[in-house]
Amino acid sequence: MTEIEVVGLTAGALTTFGFVPQIVRVYRAKSATEISLTFNLMFLAGVCTWLVYGLVLRLGPLIWWNLITLLLVLALLYGKLRYGMTRGKV
Amino acid sequence: MTEIEVVGLTAGALTTFGFVPQIVRVYRAKSATEISLTFNLMFLAGVCTWLVYGLVLRLGPLIWWNLITLLLVLALLYGKLRYGMTRGKV
Repeated sequence: MTEIEVVGLTAGALTTFGFVPQIVRVYRAKSATEISLTFNLMFLAGVCTWLVYGLVLRLGPLIWWNLITLLLVLALLYGKLRYGMTRGKV
Repeated sequence: MTEIEVVGLTAGALTTFGFVPQIVRVYRAKSATEISLTFNLMFLAGVCTWLVYGLVLRLGPLIWWNLITLLLVLALLYGKLRYGMTRGKV
């Protein structure tokens, strides 16, 4: 693996698995009123669009990172819908 | 602009500007205890690493989107440090 591939892999890992502590926090606190539903939905739509982009251009790493991120963002969205719908949508 | 470029542009816009409603929510509520500091820091490190990747490979869109995301994640981090440091770090 080249140096720049390692940089790309590290970047993808950080922006993907960064969601894990956020999900843990919401599920542990059973509270997500401060998490923005709009953020969740826009990020979900964005990740799906990156998936389309990766699939069309057959960019393996983009496809795999975004598949994992998709699952993580869905987990955060579920936490938001379950624990945080009392303070409105912004 | 080709169709796939539009797809990539849309994807970048969604995953970048998705942070705006999250920032608005934190600053409006003056509360960020549910926002994970680890999420913030990992995402910040990830965006910086994507910037390095984009700069080395001279990928314009990657550089610009990640510069904007960097500013937005810094704004969220500032909100977290100002309004949400009472419940620990996860």
